[in-house]
Parts: sequence; C-alpha cells; structure tokens
Amino acid sequence: MSARATSTENHPVAPTAAVPPPPLAEGALRVVALGGIGEVGRNMAVFEYEGRLLIVDCGVLFPEDDAPGVDLILPDFGAIENRLDEVEAIVVTHGHEDHIGAVPFLLRLRPDIPVVGSKFTLALLEAKCKEHRLEPTLVEVAEGQHSSHGAFDLEFFAVNHSIPDALAVGIRTPAGTVLHTGDIKLDQLPLDGRLTDLAGFSRLGDEGVDLFLVDSTNAEVPGVVTPEREIGPVLDSVVGEATQRLIVACFASHVHRVQQVLDVAAKRGRKVCFVGRSMVRNMGIAADQGILRVPDGLLVDLDDALAMPPEMVLFVSTGSQGEPLSALSRMARGEHKQIKIRPGDTVVLASSLIPGNETAVFGVVNGLVRLGAEVVHQGGAKVHVSGHASAGELLYLYNAVRPSNVMPVHGEWRHLRANADLATLTGVPADRVVIAEDGVVVDLVDGIASIAGRHEIGHVYVDGLSVGDVGESTLSDRLVLGEGGFISITVAVDATTGRAVSAPTISGRGFSDDPKALDDVVPLVEMELSRTESEGIVDTHRIAQSVRRTVGKWVADTYRRRPMIVPNVLPVDS
Amino acid sequence: MSARATSTENHPVAPTAAVPPPPLAEGALRVVALGGIGEVGRNMAVFEYEGRLLIVDCGVLFPEDDAPGVDLILPDFGAIENRLDEVEAIVVTHGHEDHIGAVPFLLRLRPDIPVVGSKFTLALLEAKCKEHRLEPTLVEVAEGQHSSHGAFDLEFFAVNHSIPDALAVGIRTPAGTVLHTGDIKLDQLPLDGRLTDLAGFSRLGDEGVDLFLVDSTNAEVPGVVTPEREIGPVLDSVVGEATQRLIVACFASHVHRVQQVLDVAAKRGRKVCFVGRSMVRNMGIAADQGILRVPDGLLVDLDDALAMPPEMVLFVSTGSQGEPLSALSRMARGEHKQIKIRPGDTVVLASSLIPGNETAVFGVVNGLVRLGAEVVHQGGAKVHVSGHASAGELLYLYNAVRPSNVMPVHGEWRHLRANADLATLTGVPADRVVIAEDGVVVDLVDGIASIAGRHEIGHVYVDGLSVGDVGESTLSDRLVLGEGGFISITVAVDATTGRAVSAPTISGRGFSDDPKALDDVVPLVEMELSRTESEGIVDTHRIAQSVRRTVGKWVADTYRRRPMIVPNVLPVDS
Repeated sequence: MSARATSTENHPVAPTAAVPPPPLAEGALRVVALGGIGEVGRNMAVFEYEGRLLIVDCGVLFPEDDAPGVDLILPDFGAIENRLDEVEAIVVTHGHEDHIGAVPFLLRLRPDIPVVGSKFTLALLEAKCKEHRLEPTLVEVAEGQHSSHGAFDLEFFAVNHSIPDALAVGIRTPAGTVLHTGDIKLDQLPLDGRLTDLAGFSRLGDEGVDLFLVDSTNAEVPGVVTPEREIGPVLDSVVGEATQRLIVACFASHVHRVQQVLDVAAKRGRKVCFVGRSMVRNMGIAADQGILRVPDGLLVDLDDALAMPPEMVLFVSTGSQGEPLSALSRMARGEHKQIKIRPGDTVVLASSLIPGNETAVFGVVNGLVRLGAEVVHQGGAKVHVSGHASAGELLYLYNAVRPSNVMPVHGEWRHLRANADLATLTGVPADRVVIAEDGVVVDLVDGIASIAGRHEIGHVYVDGLSVGDVGESTLSDRLVLGEGGFISITVAVDATTGRAVSAPTISGRGFSDDPKALDDVVPLVEMELSRTESEGIVDTHRIAQSVRRTVGKWVADTYRRRPMIVPNVLPVDS
Repeated sequence: MSARATSTENHPVAPTAAVPPPPLAEGALRVVALGGIGEVGRNMAVFEYEGRLLIVDCGVLFPEDDAPGVDLILPDFGAIENRLDEVEAIVVTHGHEDHIGAVPFLLRLRPDIPVVGSKFTLALLEAKCKEHRLEPTLVEVAEGQHSSHGAFDLEFFAVNHSIPDALAVGIRTPAGTVLHTGDIKLDQLPLDGRLTDLAGFSRLGDEGVDLFLVDSTNAEVPGVVTPEREIGPVLDSVVGEATQRLIVACFASHVHRVQQVLDVAAKRGRKVCFVGRSMVRNMGIAADQGILRVPDGLLVDLDDALAMPPEMVLFVSTGSQGEPLSALSRMARGEHKQIKIRPGDTVVLASSLIPGNETAVFGVVNGLVRLGAEVVHQGGAKVHVSGHASAGELLYLYNAVRPSNVMPVHGEWRHLRANADLATLTGVPADRVVIAEDGVVVDLVDGIASIAGRHEIGHVYVDGLSVGDVGESTLSDRLVLGEGGFISITVAVDATTGRAVSAPTISGRGFSDDPKALDDVVPLVEMELSRTESEGIVDTHRIAQSVRRTVGKWVADTYRRRPMIVPNVLPVDS
C-alpha cells in the first residue's frame, strides 16, 4: 500500500446517476472519458469542439474476479457510436494495451479514422491491427511536432514511461488549450537521454493551459521514482553472482529494462535468448527501429541456448505477472518443454507486482524455489521501478504547467483524490480540480471547467469472438454457477394432461462429488409432479416453477448451499 | 514482496509422490503435518511415539480462487482417522482460526479428545465449539506450566503474537525433545509485558532440543518487527487530527491493537463503540479475563454512538480485509444501515493486507474515499505491525535453542526455504534442516531427523453443512461453469426407435445475454438426431454424446468459447 488517501479539499464531484448533458455551448470544449477514470485500464478520452471529436487513447481493461471468463473489457463507445463520422482522429500516447488495445474494436466500426502516434507506438498498434485483419490509417508524429485534425491543433511532447517513445499531447482549440500527460514520469537521468519535456510544458504553461489531464497512478506515493538506470548495477550484481542459468522476466514492452539486461549480459559474457512470443516480436521491432541496441552476436535462439553451458546463457522471458500459460509459469510447474529449472538457477522478476496478481506471482515464486532456483524480486532487490510519476514529480508538473483547471485521469478513486489534492497544494483552486469518473461530461466554457452531466458508462466485455453479448446477466449466472454449480431436473410430461411420462432425471454438475448426493430429492420431485398433475396443471412453465421450488428448498435445508436449479419440463404429445 | 527467496543450501527435500512410511522404529519419534506446511493456514502437526499420538494445532485454511464456493479447507485427517483412539491430546498454541478452526471437525469424530491451551485460547475455542453444539474437554495451561499426556511431557512457554496468551510448546519424549514455536515474534517491549520466553528456550536448549519446529511466515523479511507499542503514538496523532467521526478497523482477535485504540480514545475524549459480531464477542471475553482494560464509561452502544457529536465517538470495527459482508464494506458501499460515511470522517485500517485480498481492500478504500472519508492505512502510516518474527528475530531463536534438527513450519515454499537457510546460517547443518511439506513423514531416530515417507494429503472442503463431498471433480466443474456457463439440450426420444418425439430445447445459462445466441445450432442438432435415428441408435447415452459433440464444435467455431455442454436425452415409451 502507499500513502494516505486524503480528502481534505472540496473538489467538484459528479452525480452518481446519469444526467443527460445539455448541448455544448458555442465556442466551448467538452471532454468525457469513456474509460480509465475510476479504474486503471481502458483509457479513452473524447474531446468535442463545434461538433467534431478527437479521441486520446483507446485501451483495454483486463478483467478481475467479478467478470469471470471475460478476455477483455473495452471502453463503452455508446456515447459516440452514432457520431463516429465526426471523429477527426485517435491519438495514441504510447503502446501499452490499456492505451491502444481497443483501437481495433473502434476501427471495426469506422476503419478510416486516422490514428496518430509515435513510430514505436504505431508499430505495436500495426501488429495488433494485423491480428484483427485491419489496415489502419497511421499518422506518425514525434516530440516537438505539430499535427492538425480539424479544429484540433496538436503538439507532442516527449515523456518518460515504462515503454519507449511515449508522448504527451497538447490540444489547442479556439475554446482553450488542453494538455494530456498520457502515462508519465520524470526520470531525470533516462536511459535513452530522452527527458520528459518539462521545458515544453513550461512554455505551454506560459501560453496558458486551460485544462490539464494528469496521470494519477502513483499520486499516493510520496517522493520521486528511482531512475531506471539504477537497476543496472543491481542486475549486474545478481548476474555476477549467478553460477548457473539466469532467467530474467519482465514486461515484453519494457525495452529499456531489456536493454539493461542485454548490457549486463554482454559485460558478463552471457548470451541472451528471448522467450515468449510478444517478447520476441516487440524486441524485434525495437531493434529494427534502433530503440534497442543489440551487441553483435549476443542473441542466440532457444536451441543454441539450451545446448550452451548454463553459466553462459541468460533468458529474457515474459510471464512476470504469473500468467498461467506464460513460459515462466510453465517453468515453475516443471511443464516447460525445453527449459527445466535446476537447483542453482537464478530467476529475476524485474517487474512490478500488479495488485490482484499476488497469488499468481507468489505461486510462480514457490514453484521456482521448490525446484531449487534462487528467485530475486523487487521485495529484496531494486530490480524494478515504476513507470508512473510519484507525488513529488506531479508537483513539478503542476508547477511547470500552472493550469487553470485540472482533471486527474488514469486511476482509481483513491489515486484521483490524491492527485487532486496535489494540484490544490500547488495553488490550483480546489473548485477547479474536477474529479470526473468515466462518463462524466466536463465542459470548458470561458476558461472554466465544470461538470455538465453524466453518461451511463457500461462494461463492454469481449469473450472469445464476440463483443458485447456477454453482459451483467450472463456474468451474474456465471458467478452463481462458479460458486455452487447447478442441479438439473428433466422430465417429460404429456402435453395434454400434464402427467409425467418419464421418471424425472436429476443430475448435478459442480455440486457434489458424491453420486448419491441428490438421491433423496427424487421422491420429493415425484410427489410434486403428482400434485401438479392432480391440480390439472399442464403449463410446463408452471410445472417447472414448482419443481424448482421443491428442489431449491430441499438443497438449502439439506446442504445450506445455493446451486442454480434448472428444471427442464418437456411437453410430449400423447 | 519481501527479500530474496534463496536456495543456497542443500536441505533434505521430500519426494513429490506418496511413499508409504515404514513402521516407526522402536524408541523413535515421528512427526507429520496434515496441513500448514507449504501453505499458510490449516496448521496441524501430529507427533507419534510408541503408538500414541499428540496433535499440535488444528486450524482451517481460507480458500482462494481455485476453490470457488468453498467456505473452509480442513487439514486432511485421512492419515489418522483410523487412529483417533490413540490421540492423547490436542494442543492449541493460540486462538487464531488457522490454529483452532478445525478442532470442532476433529471432535465430531472423537468428542472426548482433551484440548490443551491457554485461558484466552480456550475461551475462543469454547465459543466456536458452542456453534457446533460440542462441549470439548478443556485442559487449561499457562506459560511455565507442565502437562503430561501419555508419554508426551509438555512444557509451555510464553510467546508474543498478534493475539494474547499465545504459547510455544516443548514436548519431551524418551525419543528426544521437541520445541514447537507456534506463531511467534520477539517483541522486546510488549504491551502487556509478557515477553517471548527466550530465557526458557535457552534453558531447554541447554538440555538439548532434538527437533525445532519454527514459524516461517516472515523468514524472507530482513530485520526485526517494530514493537506493537510504536503504533500508539501514530494512532494518537491520527485521532488528534480527526475532526469528525473515526472508524478503526482491525482483526477481531487483536486485543493489544484494540487496547491501544481504547487508550488513545480515552486520552482524546472519545467514546468507543465496537462494531461487528466477532469484535463484540472477543472483546467481551478479553475484558472478562482482564486482558483488555476498558476505562469506566468508555464504551457506548451503537444507538448512543450514533446520537453523539461526530468528534466524540470512535468505532472499532471488523472488515479490515475487505470482506464483502463486513460492516466496513457495507459502509464503503453506502449500504450500512446505521453508519453513513460523511465527508471529513477518518477511517484507519490498522491491519495487515493479506495477499490475495488487495482488490477487495482497495475496493473498500476507493468506496470510502469517494464518500469523502480520509483513509489511513499501513502504506502511509505505521498503523500495523506483523505478528510473525522477521529474519533477525528467527536468528535469535536459533541461537537460543541451538537445535540438532530443524523443521520450518507455517509457510509457503519460499518462506520455508528462507527459514531453512537462516537455521543453517546459525550453524545447524544443512542436512539437518528438513523441508517437509504437508504429509511428509519425519522420523527422529537416535537424535537425527530424516524423511521416512510421504502421505497423500488432500484438500478437505467444507461447503455449507457438508464436509468432504465437494472434491476436485466438483471444483473443476465449477471452474468451467464459472468461466463459460453451460448450454443444455433437452430432447425426448422414443425408447424403442430412438426417434425424437419432442423438438430439442436448447438453452444457455452464463453463456450470453443475447436470446438468439443459440438459435443457429437448433437445425444442426435436429440433423444430428435424424442421423442417429437413421443409423438405428437408440442408446440415449450415445445420442447424448453425438449432440454434445455437435453443439461443442459449433460453439467453439462460432464463439471461440468453451461452455459446459449438457445434453439431456430422455427415453419415452411409445
């Protein structure tokens, strides 16, 4: 956990229910997030000016326990789905899934929306679109450049994050100037020398920033994030001490982290082998673009790596979050076909521990330790730093930009509130710091931001090939079935008389291992069927209701459990 | 996360498969854990000497995501269930659920086993047994006392933990002397002045400890745990700054934590109201026993508390782990009937964050912050310290006891390994430090501990009123149903000809919100039924298989999903 979640200031807070916003005033600017505020993931902000729209980011959210079986959660496009012709462009600030992952789903609805981003970001997006068989219209930009899309005049600023080539975007409109940080930190000694452009922010601040959208992720954490380069010496010491095989797991998009691993490996005379599809692909793109510098002859393929002496090789792998199908998880279970963990091997988790993944990650650690590996993780060694600005860095941002209005983005409520309080500490009046969750409509009118209404924002679930057909009712059924299974009772009845013409078949799935568990309810169901018949009930729906009631009461009394009860009453013509 | 998980030493490690142990050698001592090693929870160690058994602790494990719908997991009594008559006693080291929670389930099998423990521990156990309508045979002991049960001569030692009146137990047998720490830390300035009896351990060490079972929970954490009493001034500062209502959430058994809250409240002129059934009950017991000192007139009931000015009252509540039905969770959702969170209220989470509970706890924090509360938690303020010894304290233990053999207990693999390495650092030979998971049989013969075999240890699940009927097959069904729901196909066929005599009824639960989602498979099923009929297939089992295959393939191709497919083919006499 991090610092205090405070609520010392009275920031404007949106109504909790939907309130249709009034038409946007002439000459005013509107912003609404269709995802990403009040949650970490599926970031998407929509700006509107004079009937035209600009989208910043369009990412996915990875589901938690309350959405079982779901692969992805998309932003809710509902508020703009009838207005897609009015979209001038999508700006993608960087290449993480929670910023680009939903772009293909939006392009399915209108394939020709221009997508604006940096070279590396667009390369990752293009690979993703290819999987969806889409050929997006890409507009490549770089820090310092401008790009105009209708009335939206964009300027791009370099920012540090945990992926290269990330951008912040300034948006100039006749209604005022907006600055959106994207995901940001302020590494003062970045590995690639590409500093967050605080000077550019200051210059924009001199001109006047009317609305500042700011990454809230680490707003609760005091101080500043340790520079990425301080991980290098730690890795060097771990690699230097290792006498057997080394496996370093990290995010497949964290090129600078991988760069440091490569540099250490080269220095220590180990060859490097990339493991995991996304790691191989992304590092290929990064090397092609000159973002990853790979010393000649350093890389080996898996077969060569396996044939080498253990002290000569280092694997860079995905799976740092304990994903069950990842290479690292399979190694921890002893199920990886090629890489078998042996006593004395060293595994480094050079990554964050995303909340919610603890059980999975520690499961992997336990498996590795049990096989005899030494596991080094951020708890005991500085092998990870965050990609998001801590409170101390956010203060620099506010003091550089001196915004008139602030809107914290990218965070749960506790993060947004902490970020809002930081803005206020630097002198932004509390009533100009708007805590606007997903769907909340914020209008900038005459330089003042205020809440104008609220759209209902739903969760749009992707499950397999379908988008949107899995909704709250299906999920609620899954939760019931997942907790207690179901009991089905099937019986055929004469369609004319309602008389049972088969013995009722009762079976449970996910209810009990005991094959006799449901035996005692059969006579009760038969009695109930006799009763409905004797009362002349022929409506199969009513018969099913009676059966459900009988079985439900019996199972609650007998087992104190609540499986789903599924009666199937089949009418048969006599 | 905590420090490195290391594997620098070659400790004896058990076979992974079951290996029946040989008969115990004459004059030797055997120990086997039926739970609690390789996991955190359901602690239970069974000692055997000359055909007689002694049990230390008998607790429950709270299930994770891989056991949906399960209420509790018990130790696997399988290895001793035919030998219950040989049990001399159960020793309970302290009153936490993971040490006493399964005692009633064991007493159901043999109600007259004497249960030995301290006064407070037995009071909590007695309350629990009452819910199970059991009247256990209790043997009250205190630190410094001895108690003999057959050949097992017990001596009890005071230890610090996060609950009062915890004990370690020395077990003298003709085969050698064992010391079991229970859950332990070494608070050098404990709130109640009751120090962990390091002097007693040293004395036992002088006599010679042949086998030392040691709490591994915090073995990965360097240094020592901060004294409990240092929380007092932090609480005082938080309470002093609060201007509105205060709610402090902590574990319902952490009497010393509550004591400090009471002391601060009294000093700051606030009345205290206990919220939550277990908090009210346990603090009542603690006050009756003189373990909790309650200043006269400090406590008020809920109605009085609600009528008081907000700055005059402090609630002490359960729910610190985000339990969805707890008082605090209901407050965070705005659903608590009496206590409504208002802007300016302060909530203190004076508790650990148990791995796996992060999402739930942060959900509560977000809800509270959204309602305007300030939330103080261990991330930003020292409002919690652990109840388990860190590495630095464990070193003191090993150096005091100087054991011949060591067996780390109470931990996952990474904890056990780290603890084993600490023992070795103090001079215990690596091959005398036995990493024995649940079921591993360790024999102490002529002063040397070694692995003699391994019992198969299963998970015994409690779901509602039943113990053990929910097993791996039911859980695997629940996992499938929870991820993808099911599709059922019901059809009646002529028992003689195999001809369908009803239209097939197809329905899904937990599959899709779209009522037409399954329409396209109906003609395929009808075609398949025509085919089976034309081939003269009348066996309903075979017809069901064909239907399952048809629907399964269709749903995989169409949706790329894997719901459970449930065909019900009903034979009807023509």
